[in-house]
Amino acid sequence: MTLGQVFLSEVVGTALLILLGGGVVANVVLSKTKGFNGGWLLINFGWGFAVFIGVLAAYLSGAHLNPAVTVGLAAAGTEEFVPGIPVDFVSVLTYFGGQMLGAFLGAVLVFLTYKQHFDESDDPAAKLAVFSTGPAIRGYVWNTITEVVGTFVLVFAVISFSRQGETPGLAALGALPVALVVVAIGISLGGPTGYAINPARDLAPRIAHAVLPIKGKGSSDWSYAWVPVVGPLLGGAIAGWSSLVLLPVI
Amino acid sequence: MTLGQVFLSEVVGTALLILLGGGVVANVVLSKTKGFNGGWLLINFGWGFAVFIGVLAAYLSGAHLNPAVTVGLAAAGTEEFVPGIPVDFVSVLTYFGGQMLGAFLGAVLVFLTYKQHFDESDDPAAKLAVFSTGPAIRGYVWNTITEVVGTFVLVFAVISFSRQGETPGLAALGALPVALVVVAIGISLGGPTGYAINPARDLAPRIAHAVLPIKGKGSSDWSYAWVPVVGPLLGGAIAGWSSLVLLPVI
Amino acid sequence: MTLGQVFLSEVVGTALLILLGGGVVANVVLSKTKGFNGGWLLINFGWGFAVFIGVLAAYLSGAHLNPAVTVGLAAAGTEEFVPGIPVDFVSVLTYFGGQMLGAFLGAVLVFLTYKQHFDESDDPAAKLAVFSTGPAIRGYVWNTITEVVGTFVLVFAVISFSRQGETPGLAALGALPVALVVVAIGISLGGPTGYAINPARDLAPRIAHAVLPIKGKGSSDWSYAWVPVVGPLLGGAIAGWSSLVLLPVI
Amino acid sequence: MTLGQVFLSEVVGTALLILLGGGVVANVVLSKTKGFNGGWLLINFGWGFAVFIGVLAAYLSGAHLNPAVTVGLAAAGTEEFVPGIPVDFVSVLTYFGGQMLGAFLGAVLVFLTYKQHFDESDDPAAKLAVFSTGPAIRGYVWNTITEVVGTFVLVFAVISFSRQGETPGLAALGALPVALVVVAIGISLGGPTGYAINPARDLAPRIAHAVLPIKGKGSSDWSYAWVPVVGPLLGGAIAGWSSLVLLPVI
Repeated sequence: MTLGQVFLSEVVGTALLILLGGGVVANVVLSKTKGFNGGWLLINFGWGFAVFIGVLAAYLSGAHLNPAVTVGLAAAGTEEFVPGIPVDFVSVLTYFGGQMLGAFLGAVLVFLTYKQHFDESDDPAAKLAVFSTGPAIRGYVWNTITEVVGTFVLVFAVISFSRQGETPGLAALGALPVALVVVAIGISLGGPTGYAINPARDLAPRIAHAVLPIKGKGSSDWSYAWVPVVGPLLGGAIAGWSSLVLLPVI
Repeated sequence: MTLGQVFLSEVVGTALLILLGGGVVANVVLSKTKGFNGGWLLINFGWGFAVFIGVLAAYLSGAHLNPAVTVGLAAAGTEEFVPGIPVDFVSVLTYFGGQMLGAFLGAVLVFLTYKQHFDESDDPAAKLAVFSTGPAIRGYVWNTITEVVGTFVLVFAVISFSRQGETPGLAALGALPVALVVVAIGISLGGPTGYAINPARDLAPRIAHAVLPIKGKGSSDWSYAWVPVVGPLLGGAIAGWSSLVLLPVI
Repeated sequence: MTLGQVFLSEVVGTALLILLGGGVVANVVLSKTKGFNGGWLLINFGWGFAVFIGVLAAYLSGAHLNPAVTVGLAAAGTEEFVPGIPVDFVSVLTYFGGQMLGAFLGAVLVFLTYKQHFDESDDPAAKLAVFSTGPAIRGYVWNTITEVVGTFVLVFAVISFSRQGETPGLAALGALPVALVVVAIGISLGGPTGYAINPARDLAPRIAHAVLPIKGKGSSDWSYAWVPVVGPLLGGAIAGWSSLVLLPVI
Repeated sequence: MTLGQVFLSEVVGTALLILLGGGVVANVVLSKTKGFNGGWLLINFGWGFAVFIGVLAAYLSGAHLNPAVTVGLAAAGTEEFVPGIPVDFVSVLTYFGGQMLGAFLGAVLVFLTYKQHFDESDDPAAKLAVFSTGPAIRGYVWNTITEVVGTFVLVFAVISFSRQGETPGLAALGALPVALVVVAIGISLGGPTGYAINPARDLAPRIAHAVLPIKGKGSSDWSYAWVPVVGPLLGGAIAGWSSLVLLPVI
């Protein structure tokens, strides 16, 4: 395993994650799609199964697909992310870079897949929602707390899984538990902020929204952009530290 | 395994259970959330996946997360809850205590996660519903019967699982069957009372509702509070005794 | 394994199946329930997860829970239903008897669980729907064909599973595939007749509907009652014969 | 394993796929069905679980059920589809033939299962939708791109699974991952074109629509028919080539 392979693996996995995750939002909010107005559960399953596929594809790099997971694993005292890749500044940046590039590419693919529906829709807020999250009620402190709590659950669960032992025979189903956790977080904790719980998932598509030639697009809402970066990183770090303290005794 | 570890494990698992379970109700009933009015299936999946995550986290204590499960296992003649923890008065109280404290903490976390939506909502009944169950048609005898039946199914199923043998390779997916059982009970038996099927799930959040500074909250409906305590304990005990008689022969 | 154990096992499993399956219909069609008007997918998951729990409980008898499965396995040339229980007239009748008694008991439990909602509802057709299926468009030949096709898929899938080899480590998840098949049949083939696909599931609750003191109940629709008996038995037998011919070569 | 067995296996699996997949569309769009207007998620689960059952039945031929999968595996440099069946012109045509015949038979079975509802419905577009896909916004280039992206995800995921190693103990659940991938594609990428992602799934039922005596049917929309053939074949081939390059290094 080389850093180049880690980078590529995270690019591919995160691109699939954002293609499918952004895709379900496009399907629900853009005009004239077959899934228009399909409901919150549809969005939750869409993102959860997006994680399922992304994790499968990025198997070799450990499938973080999310800087908050990378940070959480580091905070939990992990020594190697995968065999041969020690936890250090360079490897963390490699994960971050792959995640950001992958998320950007995934956002471009969503745009191409739903191109005609972007053209037909009149609602700039809906167009931004395909790319990035926004709060139901704006309030930076509370929005950040919500993202901290959601990401804590994600990263704490991911780290808990490792305790359950190896699952050599599970094959592709091994990606199912984390997918279900993401479905759960969306269902239960996504109400106030739309559950970014992943800085790359929010920031890179926001950049894509800013640079892509989207007909009739509005603001990329940069004033909110720090919340889904800071909240998830904080939540991931807290989850890492908590698991370091809690998991050995519970 | 010590009693202290059991206590802590149940605290963490039950807190996650109530954070995610209360969270989905908040998402569906409080104003302006992204999952507002998301439907019964959304609530059922929310509680089911909440169990999935809670069980994963509380793996070492056997993940009861529910006094009715503790009682049912005792009634079924279990000798040790987990290796080193015999079934006796002290261990049962330790489980109960962890479950109550965890459920209280989970309810506080739901409040923080949805703080602005509690502030914006006008409906006191919706605010209470985030914390505790209430009957669709009030009638204490029939409401209790419904809770007995629902909890019987839960605890009988949980005890049945143990017959299927160990599943060392299943890892995180080992928490899936009980999650599906909880989804099933909500879908099928939750119509009349909202399926508490767990005294800690209902009572500790009701206490949280009473003491938290929730804007515009109404009564905590203490006159109903005994039903989701007595019904589940009774249902769990009946399931334990039934399994003692039935499972050896079927 | 004795015939008495088979009988008891099928009673318990089928009772749980009908309690949870009838329960979701009650939740969706009776007045004032929390799942009122919850949609077709809710009903499909309700019946599917009902199968999941029933199969777990009736593990030792092979969990037929359905005369069409018993007939299909016999038609497929099975020699023993479970070790020590040869396929003969007596054992088949024992399965049928347990399934009918279990389904009757399950229907009684649904009535008790939703008692107040039966009292409050004004719609006799909804009350019957909790117990038994009815056609969306009455036409006995086409209704029977629909039931034949649905049951064929169920029993052919069940027999196909046995080819996939033993799954000793799967434990409780071993009941998941057949649950998903039942969800699938409901989603895809349940539109015209409500997918009885099981004579005991329809006939025994219809008898319960006829004899229980249900306030404001209407006709038990006996003129239709033969369709969900004959169709499923025929479909199960065809599936058994087909698998005998097809499975060795595909 | 002979070519005849491969042919028969693909016929049976694809027939079940289309029976259940077409069935859910019939249930949602035809008049007076019990699932009428059941929503996009219902359709997505219907097609996903249809894949689950089709894959189980066609286990021995590798369960392609889709020319795009056959093409993708060939493009990925596969030497034998299954033991004894080398990848060559004859075997590829055998797969295609079985898939087309199976899809045609499945479409006929849907027609028989929902016969009375075809008679009662007035909407020719709904009747065609049971058989074949159509674009939400017609635009051949963009529609083709959408089908390319969706099929790429399907075939790339299918090929990725093989990396996860053998799963001898998984039995029937081994068909679950690909089912979830199809659910995911429908949820996230199905909005613009209804996700054919399979030439046989679209073309053979379109032929059935043209030849069956469907009351009040309209055009079979042959002008669009090439898109769900060309797009998926192209997407499958790209996925095969990509996996050849990417999977060894990520």
